[in-house]
Amino acid sequence: MREVYVAGIGITSFTRLEYPVSEIAAYSGMMAMRDAGLDRVDHLYLANMGGCRLNHQSGLASAVVDSLSLTPAGADTIENGPASGASAIKQGFIAVASGLYDVVMVIGAERMREVNNLDATDFVATLTHPLAEHIYGVTLPSLAGMFTRLYMEKYGVTARHLAMVAVKNHDNAMLNFYAHLHEKITIEGILDSPEALTNNPYVADPLRFYDCCPVSDGSACLILVSGAVAKKLGKPLVRLAGVGQATDTHAVHERPDPTELTAVRLAAAQSMQLAGVKPSDVNVAELHDAFTILEIVESEEVGFFPKGQGHLALERGETGLKGRIPINTSGGLKGKGHPVGATGVGQAHEIVLQLREEAGKRQVKNARVGFTCNFGGFGNNVVCLTFVREG
Amino acid sequence: MREVYVAGIGITSFTRLEYPVSEIAAYSGMMAMRDAGLDRVDHLYLANMGGCRLNHQSGLASAVVDSLSLTPAGADTIENGPASGASAIKQGFIAVASGLYDVVMVIGAERMREVNNLDATDFVATLTHPLAEHIYGVTLPSLAGMFTRLYMEKYGVTARHLAMVAVKNHDNAMLNFYAHLHEKITIEGILDSPEALTNNPYVADPLRFYDCCPVSDGSACLILVSGAVAKKLGKPLVRLAGVGQATDTHAVHERPDPTELTAVRLAAAQSMQLAGVKPSDVNVAELHDAFTILEIVESEEVGFFPKGQGHLALERGETGLKGRIPINTSGGLKGKGHPVGATGVGQAHEIVLQLREEAGKRQVKNARVGFTCNFGGFGNNVVCLTFVREG
Repeated sequence: MREVYVAGIGITSFTRLEYPVSEIAAYSGMMAMRDAGLDRVDHLYLANMGGCRLNHQSGLASAVVDSLSLTPAGADTIENGPASGASAIKQGFIAVASGLYDVVMVIGAERMREVNNLDATDFVATLTHPLAEHIYGVTLPSLAGMFTRLYMEKYGVTARHLAMVAVKNHDNAMLNFYAHLHEKITIEGILDSPEALTNNPYVADPLRFYDCCPVSDGSACLILVSGAVAKKLGKPLVRLAGVGQATDTHAVHERPDPTELTAVRLAAAQSMQLAGVKPSDVNVAELHDAFTILEIVESEEVGFFPKGQGHLALERGETGLKGRIPINTSGGLKGKGHPVGATGVGQAHEIVLQLREEAGKRQVKNARVGFTCNFGGFGNNVVCLTFVREG
Repeated sequence: MREVYVAGIGITSFTRLEYPVSEIAAYSGMMAMRDAGLDRVDHLYLANMGGCRLNHQSGLASAVVDSLSLTPAGADTIENGPASGASAIKQGFIAVASGLYDVVMVIGAERMREVNNLDATDFVATLTHPLAEHIYGVTLPSLAGMFTRLYMEKYGVTARHLAMVAVKNHDNAMLNFYAHLHEKITIEGILDSPEALTNNPYVADPLRFYDCCPVSDGSACLILVSGAVAKKLGKPLVRLAGVGQATDTHAVHERPDPTELTAVRLAAAQSMQLAGVKPSDVNVAELHDAFTILEIVESEEVGFFPKGQGHLALERGETGLKGRIPINTSGGLKGKGHPVGATGVGQAHEIVLQLREEAGKRQVKNARVGFTCNFGGFGNNVVCLTFVREG
């Protein structure tokens, strides 16, 4: 397989965007082409979860390739729920690595605000098992709530630990122009004050409002190229060095121990092995904190901390901007936002910024190895990516 | 790139199926595993167009990989409208060719009958340009109707030629157990008799009922493997020798000449070039006859006949079962059915059957090179595949 590099990146604000989803997608694509200094691509992979239902738009990749005047380049839409973005990056990696294409554009895009909030929960519940979960009223927040309760009882995670994830990621998002939420929060305000129950009501006990990511619109783009193309472009050399993907049972209750996120463990290990790095080599990571508990658990399953000790590392500040392994410097899904199909590409966008040392006030010093974990369904399809700065 | 072989195939009837879409998909997957003699795969690509809207199911690939007990294999859903199937096969080709995976399962599946017929037309209209076509009431049948009228005026195609496509493909479908329509039709019955206007009403003038494919449920599967795996399995060696894909303007009226299906021409040429064959080498082909006119025009654009002369070749019987280049031996979309996400895989299934000489009463003699054209949107994203029998 050939080596694969990131030649350009682009992103829109993750927020409420009043444009058609195809134009939201095209915007980040245009930014990435400008960043790369490229005006043609061989192929487009477009990550999107719900265009057909939410935006009355299927064949979205065909629409976007036309909006960007990139026809007759091939174009496909990739869907893997909230992990669609990293899945599309993985397809791009394979296509360049195979030698078939030299320049592949990967865009993630979603416009979720076309539906109201109730519909959004129902839309996301299309990820649950139709016969074993959905018909009993299971939604993603309810699965996450039950998972959190189990984790608290087994490992001693508390509501305070969850709130610490939210506070950290909101703080990081304050430093990110493109983040959905620019709102300073405190443990006092969301947990301890008399107003906390009003400010921060329960969504799915023990998860509260500030434990859940917002519903966002947005788009992000990565342009992947062969080594020969990358070296001609003269940008900082960031290599997509590893990809990994694993599935788990579709119904969460079928797992021998539901507190084990096996697919995260397998996908992370595959990705790091292909890249030739260990968890302790990683300098900066974006983990999939759709719910605060997930950042803690993923930080264990990917190998940064021993199982059951992620919350203790968080407490010690090891995942903060100046910690040993800063997590979700972008603000994460919690602060930066979660336009589902775009999220995985947005995570990769942040890592590339960090490895290029272009992350401004949230720059992690000497970041050479970056990692992303994009979590589909409730951990039933997980994609992890490892990036390495060269030169 | 490594060579890629077809190790196993499976298919359900293309008809009305009263099972969840994930189980329809799993059924063809199970058949293909049995056919190949394999019980593990490295990855699943699942082609589906409308699960999120039609079946309240996103992350369908994750559901199917679980139904088949193939976890923790990775799984992604690929969407390219009615060309999703061939797009997914193309991803499988790239993944095996790259060396990342040795065994990739590709399933196409759709369950469309969950919606009523009006909804089906609206669903398919999600493929049109949202701002330039859809808001003016454009649907796929209406585009096809206008396209047919232009083609008739420019090249002398008549209603009789269109009917000949329908009659031929219904005849072929009678020989295919898995076809949706087992209904003998005649030119007399659908065109010349006094009852023809009742039997065969206008849908989008000049297209009539029997010029349009049915709305089907169904699934088909191909298992793609490396040469090393293929040679161990001992099945007839059918190589996926070429893939090609091209896009065109999303809005049909933006094309300099709307009667030119440029993306078909480009995708076919790419696919045959990669395979090292010429159009005249092809012994059997499945073309995307969602509307009868498309079989005629595609037979020209892929290079079987000169532009504007496809209808004359049809008239001479060259595309019939015993003709020079039999087209749509399976019955095509017209007779076999069109479960959109499954269609491209179904086309490939037929070609593999033919190249293995397992097509029974519709077997084409000495078929060594087979070809498929899978047509997305109204020709805005086309994927072509070339298969070669070895040994």
